[in-house]
Amino acid sequence: MVKRAAEIGLPDWLVAMAPPAAPVSDEACMRLAIALARENVARETGGPFGAVVRADLTGEIVSVGVNLVPASGNPVLHAETVAISLAAEQLAGGGPLTLFTSCEPCIMCLGALHWSGIQRIVSAALKADAEAAGFSEGAGTRELRAEMAARGVVFVDGVLREAGAEVLRIYAGGGGRIYGPA
Amino acid sequence: MVKRAAEIGLPDWLVAMAPPAAPVSDEACMRLAIALARENVARETGGPFGAVVRADLTGEIVSVGVNLVPASGNPVLHAETVAISLAAEQLAGGGPLTLFTSCEPCIMCLGALHWSGIQRIVSAALKADAEAAGFSEGAGTRELRAEMAARGVVFVDGVLREAGAEVLRIYAGGGGRIYGPA
Repeated sequence: MVKRAAEIGLPDWLVAMAPPAAPVSDEACMRLAIALARENVARETGGPFGAVVRADLTGEIVSVGVNLVPASGNPVLHAETVAISLAAEQLAGGGPLTLFTSCEPCIMCLGALHWSGIQRIVSAALKADAEAAGFSEGAGTRELRAEMAARGVVFVDGVLREAGAEVLRIYAGGGGRIYGPA
Repeated sequence: MVKRAAEIGLPDWLVAMAPPAAPVSDEACMRLAIALARENVARETGGPFGAVVRADLTGEIVSVGVNLVPASGNPVLHAETVAISLAAEQLAGGGPLTLFTSCEPCIMCLGALHWSGIQRIVSAALKADAEAAGFSEGAGTRELRAEMAARGVVFVDGVLREAGAEVLRIYAGGGGRIYGPA
C-alpha cells in the first residue's frame, strides 16, 4: 500500500551542535531559534525559520526544529511542527513548556500548538514580516489565537523581532524558494 | 543536540493492505478513508480518522494516512498530515490531487492543506460531528476555508457523512482517548 513512512530528521549540522547549558533564559532560547533559522539558510537545508521547545521548570531545551520543506518536499515540516514532533515525550510529561520561534507561527503551526498543549509561545518576527518576505501565512490565526488565549495560552510577540525578520530578508533577497500554496 | 529524528510510519495492518485498482472513484476513495479510520480504532493504532490522496488524472491513490497521535504522542500526526507527508513527491509533481478525509479537517490540517497546494478536499463527517465526539477542532477554519476557496480550492463536505460520524461515535463510546489541548 503506497509509501509507508517518512522521516522528520534534523540536518547534520544541527545534530552536531551542543545544546546550551540549562537553565536557558528566554532571550538565549530566542537567540538560538534565530541562529538555527539563519544557519538553515546559510547551509541551504531549508527555509528561514527555527524553533526551540524548553521545559520551563528545569530550563532545559527539550527539542529544536528548523524548516525542512524545500529539502523534503513535505509542506508539513515547518520549524514549529518539527520541534513539536521531536518533543512528543515531553508533551505528555507534565511540566510546562515554552515554544520559541524565529517567526510568528503560520496557521498550520498554530493549529499544531493548539493540539500540543504548550502553554506559552514566544515569537521574534511578526506575521507581517513573513508576508513581506513573500510567505502566505494563512487566514484564521487571529481567531485561533483568541481561542487559545481564552484557555490560558500566553503569547509573547516581537521578541528580538528585527533579528528574526533579518533572516527572512536574507532568504528572500538571496533567491531562496518562497514555497507556498500558489 | 537533543532528539534528532522522528518517524511518520503507517501501522503494519495498513501497510499490508492492497490499494484498490485505479482509477478509484470519489466514492471508493471516501469508503477507503472511512474504512481506514474504522480499522485504526478496531486495531487500537490511533484515533478515528483516515485520509486518502488521489492523483485525479490517473485515478491512482498516491498516499493514505490514519491518525497516529495516541501511539506516537506526536500531536502533529493526524490522518491528513500523515497522508500529505507521504504524498510529498506527488505534491511537487504537477497533476491535480484530491484529499479525501473521514472527517472535516481541523485547523492544523486545513493549514497543512493550505501549504500543500492540494486543490480539492472532500470530507465525510462534519466538524460538528468531531466536536460532538469530544474533539476540539480549533477556531479559524471558516476564515481559512474562505481564503482557500477564493484562490480556487474546492471543498466538498458531508460525503458519506453518517459513515464517517459513526466511527467517531464508536471511538468515543468505546472509551477511546479524546486527546486535545485541555
